[in-house]
Amino acid sequence: MLTAAAARDRFAATRGLTELLAAPLSPEDQTVQSMPDVSPTKWHRAHVTWFFETFVLDRFADGYEAYDEAYRMLFNSYYEGVGPKFSRARRGLLSRPGANEVGKYREFVDAAMDDLLAGATDDDTDLLTLVELGVHHEQQHQELLLMDIKHVLSIDPQGAVYRPDAVDRSVTSPLTWTDCDPGGQVEVGHDGDGFHFDNESPRHTVFLEPFRIADRLVTAGEWAAFIADGGYERHELWLSDGWHIVGEQGWTAPLYWEAYGDSWIVHTLGGPREIIDGEPVCHVSHFEADAYARWAGARLPTEFEWEYAATRHGRAADAGRPFDVERLQPRAAAGTDSLEQLYGECWQWTSSAYLPYPRFRTAPGAVGEYNGKFMSGQMVLRGSGAYTPTGHARPTYRNFFPARNRWMVSGVRLAADIADA
Amino acid sequence: MLTAAAARDRFAATRGLTELLAAPLSPEDQTVQSMPDVSPTKWHRAHVTWFFETFVLDRFADGYEAYDEAYRMLFNSYYEGVGPKFSRARRGLLSRPGANEVGKYREFVDAAMDDLLAGATDDDTDLLTLVELGVHHEQQHQELLLMDIKHVLSIDPQGAVYRPDAVDRSVTSPLTWTDCDPGGQVEVGHDGDGFHFDNESPRHTVFLEPFRIADRLVTAGEWAAFIADGGYERHELWLSDGWHIVGEQGWTAPLYWEAYGDSWIVHTLGGPREIIDGEPVCHVSHFEADAYARWAGARLPTEFEWEYAATRHGRAADAGRPFDVERLQPRAAAGTDSLEQLYGECWQWTSSAYLPYPRFRTAPGAVGEYNGKFMSGQMVLRGSGAYTPTGHARPTYRNFFPARNRWMVSGVRLAADIADA
Amino acid sequence: MLTAAAARDRFAATRGLTELLAAPLSPEDQTVQSMPDVSPTKWHRAHVTWFFETFVLDRFADGYEAYDEAYRMLFNSYYEGVGPKFSRARRGLLSRPGANEVGKYREFVDAAMDDLLAGATDDDTDLLTLVELGVHHEQQHQELLLMDIKHVLSIDPQGAVYRPDAVDRSVTSPLTWTDCDPGGQVEVGHDGDGFHFDNESPRHTVFLEPFRIADRLVTAGEWAAFIADGGYERHELWLSDGWHIVGEQGWTAPLYWEAYGDSWIVHTLGGPREIIDGEPVCHVSHFEADAYARWAGARLPTEFEWEYAATRHGRAADAGRPFDVERLQPRAAAGTDSLEQLYGECWQWTSSAYLPYPRFRTAPGAVGEYNGKFMSGQMVLRGSGAYTPTGHARPTYRNFFPARNRWMVSGVRLAADIADA
Amino acid sequence: MLTAAAARDRFAATRGLTELLAAPLSPEDQTVQSMPDVSPTKWHRAHVTWFFETFVLDRFADGYEAYDEAYRMLFNSYYEGVGPKFSRARRGLLSRPGANEVGKYREFVDAAMDDLLAGATDDDTDLLTLVELGVHHEQQHQELLLMDIKHVLSIDPQGAVYRPDAVDRSVTSPLTWTDCDPGGQVEVGHDGDGFHFDNESPRHTVFLEPFRIADRLVTAGEWAAFIADGGYERHELWLSDGWHIVGEQGWTAPLYWEAYGDSWIVHTLGGPREIIDGEPVCHVSHFEADAYARWAGARLPTEFEWEYAATRHGRAADAGRPFDVERLQPRAAAGTDSLEQLYGECWQWTSSAYLPYPRFRTAPGAVGEYNGKFMSGQMVLRGSGAYTPTGHARPTYRNFFPARNRWMVSGVRLAADIADA
Repeated sequence: MLTAAAARDRFAATRGLTELLAAPLSPEDQTVQSMPDVSPTKWHRAHVTWFFETFVLDRFADGYEAYDEAYRMLFNSYYEGVGPKFSRARRGLLSRPGANEVGKYREFVDAAMDDLLAGATDDDTDLLTLVELGVHHEQQHQELLLMDIKHVLSIDPQGAVYRPDAVDRSVTSPLTWTDCDPGGQVEVGHDGDGFHFDNESPRHTVFLEPFRIADRLVTAGEWAAFIADGGYERHELWLSDGWHIVGEQGWTAPLYWEAYGDSWIVHTLGGPREIIDGEPVCHVSHFEADAYARWAGARLPTEFEWEYAATRHGRAADAGRPFDVERLQPRAAAGTDSLEQLYGECWQWTSSAYLPYPRFRTAPGAVGEYNGKFMSGQMVLRGSGAYTPTGHARPTYRNFFPARNRWMVSGVRLAADIADA
Repeated sequence: MLTAAAARDRFAATRGLTELLAAPLSPEDQTVQSMPDVSPTKWHRAHVTWFFETFVLDRFADGYEAYDEAYRMLFNSYYEGVGPKFSRARRGLLSRPGANEVGKYREFVDAAMDDLLAGATDDDTDLLTLVELGVHHEQQHQELLLMDIKHVLSIDPQGAVYRPDAVDRSVTSPLTWTDCDPGGQVEVGHDGDGFHFDNESPRHTVFLEPFRIADRLVTAGEWAAFIADGGYERHELWLSDGWHIVGEQGWTAPLYWEAYGDSWIVHTLGGPREIIDGEPVCHVSHFEADAYARWAGARLPTEFEWEYAATRHGRAADAGRPFDVERLQPRAAAGTDSLEQLYGECWQWTSSAYLPYPRFRTAPGAVGEYNGKFMSGQMVLRGSGAYTPTGHARPTYRNFFPARNRWMVSGVRLAADIADA
Repeated sequence: MLTAAAARDRFAATRGLTELLAAPLSPEDQTVQSMPDVSPTKWHRAHVTWFFETFVLDRFADGYEAYDEAYRMLFNSYYEGVGPKFSRARRGLLSRPGANEVGKYREFVDAAMDDLLAGATDDDTDLLTLVELGVHHEQQHQELLLMDIKHVLSIDPQGAVYRPDAVDRSVTSPLTWTDCDPGGQVEVGHDGDGFHFDNESPRHTVFLEPFRIADRLVTAGEWAAFIADGGYERHELWLSDGWHIVGEQGWTAPLYWEAYGDSWIVHTLGGPREIIDGEPVCHVSHFEADAYARWAGARLPTEFEWEYAATRHGRAADAGRPFDVERLQPRAAAGTDSLEQLYGECWQWTSSAYLPYPRFRTAPGAVGEYNGKFMSGQMVLRGSGAYTPTGHARPTYRNFFPARNRWMVSGVRLAADIADA
Repeated sequence: MLTAAAARDRFAATRGLTELLAAPLSPEDQTVQSMPDVSPTKWHRAHVTWFFETFVLDRFADGYEAYDEAYRMLFNSYYEGVGPKFSRARRGLLSRPGANEVGKYREFVDAAMDDLLAGATDDDTDLLTLVELGVHHEQQHQELLLMDIKHVLSIDPQGAVYRPDAVDRSVTSPLTWTDCDPGGQVEVGHDGDGFHFDNESPRHTVFLEPFRIADRLVTAGEWAAFIADGGYERHELWLSDGWHIVGEQGWTAPLYWEAYGDSWIVHTLGGPREIIDGEPVCHVSHFEADAYARWAGARLPTEFEWEYAATRHGRAADAGRPFDVERLQPRAAAGTDSLEQLYGECWQWTSSAYLPYPRFRTAPGAVGEYNGKFMSGQMVLRGSGAYTPTGHARPTYRNFFPARNRWMVSGVRLAADIADA
């Protein structure tokens, strides 16, 4: 639980980072929705504000009056318990409020939050709990904002730039593995100490067999070899649904890769450039990750294998490089023969479906819609990515997306049974 | 044919009006494409500029270098002969170039055109012909710009305003008719004197039987009576395809009408307001116009009946009220027992399919794609509307849209056979 | 108007022909609906029976009781005035009633009709009018039945056979033309003497300029040359909507043509075989017909040019070869330097939209839905085809289909202006 | 492993049952595909025959020549390794081969199989393994055949009958529960003794917490109470994807239920009739099962909880009522305060995603496509249903379908944590 003072700090820092991320973007950039999964930047900026208004100010700030009653509906994402919501697939059709007006909305709510938090004490646990949730919620949308604007700018046939990126051309050493022998029963899930989302709990026991896990992520160079070996043309490597999508969508490479002679151009937030062999491959779907693993004679880890390995063999989530708006592209591994790249580069697909943990219960009321109702038809990713803000990564964090999605910073870490690794 | 001096004036005036029309719109407003038929405002501003670049500057301005080669593709609408084009349905996914950058593009091309026209003489007929075409082309897009932004702003659940509109609450007198007896053979189509589009020619002979034509347009109040009498619920009033769309789309009123107690709210460029009984109904499809006419015991005129009546019994196209950006809503008829509202209020659906006139030939080259290739699957509208710029209306003008479209300023003038009117 | 005796004969003959056409088809063949436009054979057999039940027996046969009340809905095609109808696109999902049960339904209605007609006299004009309509209605469905089963059998990768066809390998002489100078005003439409559909009237005056019309239909060999010359790859030949479909559907040849080395295999009711150079091309859309004409430096005739030419320069509709179930493929022209192949080979696309004639009125009641409500979004074809039963062709007959349809026996006759033919 | 003698018996019995199941169906019934998930009866009859031809005769019968080479493609379901396949969604568009011809194909393959098996000994383990797989494969299709024909016949607005069903009107006693305390680690999966599919192995350890499981299935009467309590209208009961489908598809009750005054009519293979309170509800999706469980204050069991309970507390899979073609509707529970209805009534949705077991490997070659490639995007059902043939049920059997599917005989057994049951 945050103290009141910490809540003030975290609130201010988080709100500030959102604006920093939006700063390079024109009003037009902030308006476009390039596919139904994507939300416009100005929508993200407004929605996270709506969250504080709806779940904090309405409840704790006496006499609070909404900035604009219409925003109740416009910026509700998926909370059925709060009331009607504007169609998700049509967010990009709304020109108003514009980016500046959203800025005023943010200022209005920030001022009201500042007033409220100025009078808060460490005993205001209900308030502080929801402020902390709101901060983490806004961090999730910071990552979404970057994912989404990357997709928006990729529509531009000229290759639009969000912000020039410092390119890291490090080479990568050959793949090594870490052997894990959990000895049977293992405790997984969050132990309740510190912030976590409801889907990370309850902590519970699972049974794990011995396994190996790769010390680093699959690289772009390795992926190019997979492609060259017919990876996207051999049905026997693919799950049936994945193979269907390969044909339907004409997939021949990760999202944002485009063939360029014998090499590949990749669209990044810094604009288009050639791939770098040692950088982690990203923007692959679960289906591609699974097919690659099969091609490589390995498999994806389960989410619990990943968590076990990260907890026992990895460095702390905050021990990696800090979030850096000038280095938003995943970098090559250092290559030290130990478990690397757990956090801060690419989210890592697991072989686990996103399902509730034993004894999981959703919270009552609309805030209970945060996670639980999405526990169907998605796969778990673990770790964190280059777009994940500082302080938002944990070994128990469960990210989740449908198996066909590719616009996240999603990469691949291999695993194998001990017997045949 | 324009003189060189007139071309300079018309060019400057037309370019200026486009910017005046865009002036009330934010960068966000100018970016959105609310349905595939709609184009973003900034796209319109750029495309008409591309037209001058492609069909005038490239050909006549020695050493002209394009402002940006990428715009060749981005702002090509449908000219297959010019090269590739950016997908029409995805124009709203492009955030760049932004509205300001498009302004710079316009200034660049305007300067090049000014230079070119400064040196032109009245003998430069090829040049002047294409400049005149470009001016009329831009006028068409001025009307489209207004139609499109009206649709964009209608997405806003709060009813966004383009520009406050001076509302005219005149009452309308009862419907009267003008009898027409063409006496058989009639010459129709443009006689070649003055500017016209290729689809208005060749002038040719048609045979017309005696008919009556309504002196004014159908009003919103009359349309409300049609609705109240089950107009949208009685299959026997409708063409089969129209009846299918009524069910599929759930049509119960014209586009932009919303039930409000016992009355109707209509979305206008001045924002939402109640309908006014005497104002012409607009934003109806051909199917609705046809069903209304059947309900009223009448029919729609053919395009040649309309042209005959307008030529022999109507006032000149430029004798009506001038285009006025502060009065963009069609107004009630004056009610003088003669043929009114031919121009400047609503385009008027006819019962004629949009087909080539006898001996019609398209021009060679890409400019020949202007009209001819669209002569399929559309219906003709005649007259002009409240969004049509001054100087753009003629009795022989053929506007055309698919029978199901409703986002134009389309209204209804009735006709009848003499025998049973 | 038929006499009572003639009505009995025509009724019996027509009902018998339907069963003859269905005879080669298994219950499975009669069940399948291979696309939404197609109806299963057993549905056709039942629907035409329903027509007599609904429009004749219910009205004229005292005490008539329906064979099965459920059939009222199952076999209503599009008559909103009669009551609910089973979804057209789902006709192929109904296994029951089966083909045999439909046979029993036909026998039941035939017996009731026989009883009714046995007591009819020539004065029973209302009855005889509707029986005649029912006969012509069933003839239309005989043609549809053949079109539809051809499409059903084409799904079979092995090339299923309806009935072995006697193949005519005649060669065709070079194309000649007939000059027509109508001298201005021409009367078109049915003069009211003998049976006709309502859409062929009223007879009225049109104005025609001099024109030429091709003496025979475009051949398969000529079409192959069009393809070889890039006919399906050159946008400038196509109407915009047509060009869009070419890309969307991947059209590279007429329906039922499949490339086979340097030649083409065509699916016929007699099974697959190579094309014959001299046979008329068929199964082309209006868009293809129009593009071909443009490629050939010609155009399609209007429906009134066709009617004028057929009336003044052609042989009578019944002077051609009789309908022959063993020769269902259009044959090569005799090549006698005069207007040939007007009837009995391929329906011929015109450049005319399907619209009502001046003063056209639909009949009151459900039978008025027969034609009028479809006068939108379709193009007129004239003549008749190899599947058209004897006695069903007339110079004023207006067949109509959407411009993109191809499963009819639709071919191409060229026309040209006199000035540039 | 079957002995050669047993293989002969099982083969003959299984092939005979398929024909018995198809016997009440007309050729038309056997042709229709009422939705993409459904296959026509005659396709099932042919495909299971193709399986023996492809995986047994081609490999083991010297000199075997295919009945028809075209069937290789027509009746391949999803085996990419075998070659091309006819589009699944278009199976209902094929009228040929017809039902009789498929019968001949079956006879031909049966004769070849009889010859082959006549000469087999118990040492022909490769052969016997594949024959046994083919028998179980055909049993799966027997169940699919019944599911599919039920859907086909449901299209008939009159409520077609497959075979009159003996209706059981037993009442059901109140719900009781069985407490299970697995004590932590539990072995699950098939132990390798006797036939099983590859997806049931390897046997492995999981960790289970104490739980309760309902002694019987949820009844139709209980489901009606769920509906009456707003079950399909309360978003808070539903997973997000489920709630979306409820709105999109307009679900208000299980598949095949139709409101009838205050009660419900249900379509069965015996035709339509009112629901019986005590019969198990079936034809519900995973989403509905999950929502119901939430409404009931319970949850679905995991597949391992189900397997544990069935193994320790249930009767053997073959101890229930035998498969009976005259009693194809699930029956009410006997109500003996112990775990009932595990087999032979409804498949039971679990909360487990269909994923590979630890160390799972697919078999090499096309036969390895049997199960593994479908381990994505589906949920596990356990037990067996009223359409499952005798000898086809096991406690380790994993059935699987997408969460939105409803045309299986799928029902609901509740579970709960011990703490709050």
